[in-house]
Amino acid sequence: MNKVNHYSVPGFLASTTSSGLKDNGQPDLSLIFSQTKSVADGVFTTNMVKAAPVLLGKERIKKGSIRAIIANAGNANACTGERGLINAVKTADIVSEGLNINPEEIMVASTGVIGVPLPLNLMEKAIPGLIKDLSPHGFSSVARAIMTTDSFPKMSYFEGKAGQHPYRILGLAKGAGMIMPNMATMLSFILTDINISHRELINVFRPSVDSTFNRITVDGETSTNDMVLILANGKAGNVSLSDSCLVDFQKGLKAVMEDLADMIIKDGEGATKTVLIQIKGAYAKEEATRAARAVANSPLVKTALFGCDPNWGRIMAALGRSEIRMEQNLVQIWIDNVLIADRGLGTGKKSEEEAFDKMKKDKITITIQLNQGDFEYSLKTCDLTYDYVKINAGYRS
Amino acid sequence: MNKVNHYSVPGFLASTTSSGLKDNGQPDLSLIFSQTKSVADGVFTTNMVKAAPVLLGKERIKKGSIRAIIANAGNANACTGERGLINAVKTADIVSEGLNINPEEIMVASTGVIGVPLPLNLMEKAIPGLIKDLSPHGFSSVARAIMTTDSFPKMSYFEGKAGQHPYRILGLAKGAGMIMPNMATMLSFILTDINISHRELINVFRPSVDSTFNRITVDGETSTNDMVLILANGKAGNVSLSDSCLVDFQKGLKAVMEDLADMIIKDGEGATKTVLIQIKGAYAKEEATRAARAVANSPLVKTALFGCDPNWGRIMAALGRSEIRMEQNLVQIWIDNVLIADRGLGTGKKSEEEAFDKMKKDKITITIQLNQGDFEYSLKTCDLTYDYVKINAGYRS
Repeated sequence: MNKVNHYSVPGFLASTTSSGLKDNGQPDLSLIFSQTKSVADGVFTTNMVKAAPVLLGKERIKKGSIRAIIANAGNANACTGERGLINAVKTADIVSEGLNINPEEIMVASTGVIGVPLPLNLMEKAIPGLIKDLSPHGFSSVARAIMTTDSFPKMSYFEGKAGQHPYRILGLAKGAGMIMPNMATMLSFILTDINISHRELINVFRPSVDSTFNRITVDGETSTNDMVLILANGKAGNVSLSDSCLVDFQKGLKAVMEDLADMIIKDGEGATKTVLIQIKGAYAKEEATRAARAVANSPLVKTALFGCDPNWGRIMAALGRSEIRMEQNLVQIWIDNVLIADRGLGTGKKSEEEAFDKMKKDKITITIQLNQGDFEYSLKTCDLTYDYVKINAGYRS
Repeated sequence: MNKVNHYSVPGFLASTTSSGLKDNGQPDLSLIFSQTKSVADGVFTTNMVKAAPVLLGKERIKKGSIRAIIANAGNANACTGERGLINAVKTADIVSEGLNINPEEIMVASTGVIGVPLPLNLMEKAIPGLIKDLSPHGFSSVARAIMTTDSFPKMSYFEGKAGQHPYRILGLAKGAGMIMPNMATMLSFILTDINISHRELINVFRPSVDSTFNRITVDGETSTNDMVLILANGKAGNVSLSDSCLVDFQKGLKAVMEDLADMIIKDGEGATKTVLIQIKGAYAKEEATRAARAVANSPLVKTALFGCDPNWGRIMAALGRSEIRMEQNLVQIWIDNVLIADRGLGTGKKSEEEAFDKMKKDKITITIQLNQGDFEYSLKTCDLTYDYVKINAGYRS
């Protein structure tokens, strides 16, 4: 038994079961339950095509209070029309009856194949067992049951203190590509027992999503089902949060989310390495972002990363088509600490060889100095490999 | 000998040689020469990072008069700084001396590895031989000598009549990806003996580029070296062009360019099939374009194409992230003539099976009706395969 199995947060229970949604009979349905009222927030995919649970969740999160999350893998309940929405509502209703809580306080999360009606009968059969099995130690099973093309479960844990009151942050996530309507998409659930107001929670949560989960890309695709939820039940017993405690909490929260985001990139479909793309010296914030995304999602840069080829010309070309203000003869590019292009020109065979060696590692940093202004942005990506094609070219049946 | 070898256009000569730029000793340097003055136009990459020959060519084309094109493969002369520009100018100067024509009327085109200085000494040695070998039948050799990762040479030919005067359009192209700074990028040279004014030439040429070469994508990348040039020497002897003759010429020109564009997609790096993406019923022209590009460049759609998987959910997701106005419950998707999604919902197992069969062909059409407005756009793409990764992950040396 791994230490991971012992993570728990007072007041939160979880359980999993195999409902039959996954063909291989693996656990595919999870329930997370807060024994008391909890304040909550969530962020959802920006894709115009939103899965039914996303449409439902966006409405329900507005009240800022959530008691339970019912999450399934194996079916995205996306592109399923009105019937899909009804099925999401009904799933929550079944949980509501079993737990005797307000259905409006239940979130539904789905991940899996798109365009296939959710088999509600399977959910109906499985949910009573889920409720019976709820336990403070069920979270590592949840991390496993929400997996699709993931190759390992993703959990992260942090303990802090608000004054004299210790609190915990437990994060779970799944995802191995920004979108895999075939079998996946990104979900994350964060549970904490800190006592925090809804306003404070929003203020620390949303910027943390922005600097962690929104800073990773596997293939530049955006899912129909992405969802990150946070629940805070107040069981830690702290009365109010001082500014410094709030800062500490945000640090802890960000650390947990960054940890999970790193695991998603590490588990990127077919990926052999994690690559931090740092843009510096951009003319505008928004241009730094666009430049980083262009490089991070370039198929030619990503295949070069796979081949350990310090092909800085491809980086220059990706920058050049990103519609930013740039002058090629000002650009500097480093792989880790090796300067491979200076003022738009290659720095020679020796530094290419050094860069080649650096690129054999499973974690590298590419730093691009545009020398146009003061804006920066960074983003984590992975390489594009045979296995990405293999995973995604397989026929669904 | 293939019939292709006999294509020629009165007044135009060509030759090729092996200068040593390609490691394998294959022909890599080409010269095209117009024996008389010719009107000319050109379009160039929109990438901010432009190769030296592009920077030079953009200036020289302004006068609308070109006598020669010197084109090399094996070195892109991109990201080579001021020295690169000097080398491009010098290359043209050497040709100018040999042919005794104004250097301002000589275009330079390069394709190959980025960031490596152009070995001018090789050019100097080879150009006298090129000039000596100029012949009316050298064009098929040029189509071969400009190849990089291309697996076949690309030529297309059209004959028309302007009144009583027959004229010819000969097109050459190379390219197997939108960009391959490693070893490639797209070049095309179109030669015609029609007598046409500079203004008329621009008016028929640029829209034709827009509806052919600008409507293909292999990997969504934009090259540092893309260049399409057209030269018209007037040897056909027609005096002026009637409106209907101009329309016929434009049709012929477009047919030649479409033919070449199709060959580039067919030869897309690692591609096993050509896919026409048709967007219909978009709210705005620009949204139709964006939607088509999002679908055509989606790694998940392209891997599904490789796997013959009619995974319409991935198409929906790509549309959904393309920042267009859409309602998922209005969208219809066809693979060839098989409706696989109607009003945002799948049409069932039978049509998926039919679509799967269609997808086994090497040429398919995906039609997407957004039902939002009247705007359309179409784009040709190819699938994403193991071989794309193989071709682009190989270390350069």
